[in-house]
Amino acid sequence: MKVLLIGSTGTIGKEVAKALAARHDVIAASRNHGLHRVDIADKESLAALFRAVGQVDAVVCAAGSAKFAPLGVLTDDDFRFSLGNKLMGQVNVARLAAEYVADGGSITLTSGVLAREPMPGGAAIGMVNAALEGFVRGAALELPRGIRINVVSPPWVEETLRALEMEGRGAPAATVARAYVESVEGKRTGQVIEVPLP
Amino acid sequence: MKVLLIGSTGTIGKEVAKALAARHDVIAASRNHGLHRVDIADKESLAALFRAVGQVDAVVCAAGSAKFAPLGVLTDDDFRFSLGNKLMGQVNVARLAAEYVADGGSITLTSGVLAREPMPGGAAIGMVNAALEGFVRGAALELPRGIRINVVSPPWVEETLRALEMEGRGAPAATVARAYVESVEGKRTGQVIEVPLP
Repeated sequence: MKVLLIGSTGTIGKEVAKALAARHDVIAASRNHGLHRVDIADKESLAALFRAVGQVDAVVCAAGSAKFAPLGVLTDDDFRFSLGNKLMGQVNVARLAAEYVADGGSITLTSGVLAREPMPGGAAIGMVNAALEGFVRGAALELPRGIRINVVSPPWVEETLRALEMEGRGAPAATVARAYVESVEGKRTGQVIEVPLP
Repeated sequence: MKVLLIGSTGTIGKEVAKALAARHDVIAASRNHGLHRVDIADKESLAALFRAVGQVDAVVCAAGSAKFAPLGVLTDDDFRFSLGNKLMGQVNVARLAAEYVADGGSITLTSGVLAREPMPGGAAIGMVNAALEGFVRGAALELPRGIRINVVSPPWVEETLRALEMEGRGAPAATVARAYVESVEGKRTGQVIEVPLP
């Protein structure tokens, strides 16, 4: 399959790229590296990426930022940023992919465990993650030409915890990556694919 | 208790007003009626309402619009409207209420069944409803002074189905209203209060 991977150089994206490349032709897009540059918060940048790449069998998005900060500190701009980037960035990936993905192909987005397991500082991220899950459940009923859509909900990632010098258990990014492969290669649609801690 | 009810003249809000008024002092605010006018999509309008009303024991929001339309028809503006009105309108109610609600008081927002039970045309609404649920789970951990927050998830409302001449089973608005009373008077926080069909 020809798979467009957006966010191919992030902690998770790098492992998704490796896992998919074993069996598929991966077209890597990222914010700051490689041939295909894209800013998911900018719909025109996304549209240009899809025009450049043309038809694909699957689109995977492992990109998207939202603001982690105490509720009392989150500003209007923090909410606007979070909604515009991780949420609408990925919603727009799905809306554009609906035009470019081949019949029976798939779209895979990324939410995260804070949608269901809240923690202090996570109100905006939890909101955005839950929104993506609600969107995917709905969009799955309406995508044309048998196109599937799922959202992977990663737990904390081991490599991220290490980088942030945070305590706590995480899943290795390579384990998380398997959920994306499952979404691309499987039959599921409208699902939140949860990645359990090992 | 002194309860600020935003959206007091809607199908659900009217019944919430009746149910609360039996035991509480209800300050009614709505878009187009009465003493207190407010547009929840306009943060300054909300801030003016809270300044005018002052301290309350509970805030209930039964207001908020999001766009119901097929995924392929939803425009950028439809998404922007839905996020700005039903989602950020209510998130801003909660952020402002955190300053004006008395110690141990409560905030109650409104999502809806499309968060979990999708239907064609409901991708934007389901997204917004799920987002509110994610936000409430997170915000509950961080609100100051023992303030609680919940979100009521109404099913289709009988009166709405009738008004839209739609088929299907709904709950009477008066039944839905009981969930708001439970949120205001009970001990729960961080919960999605689902209203089952009768």
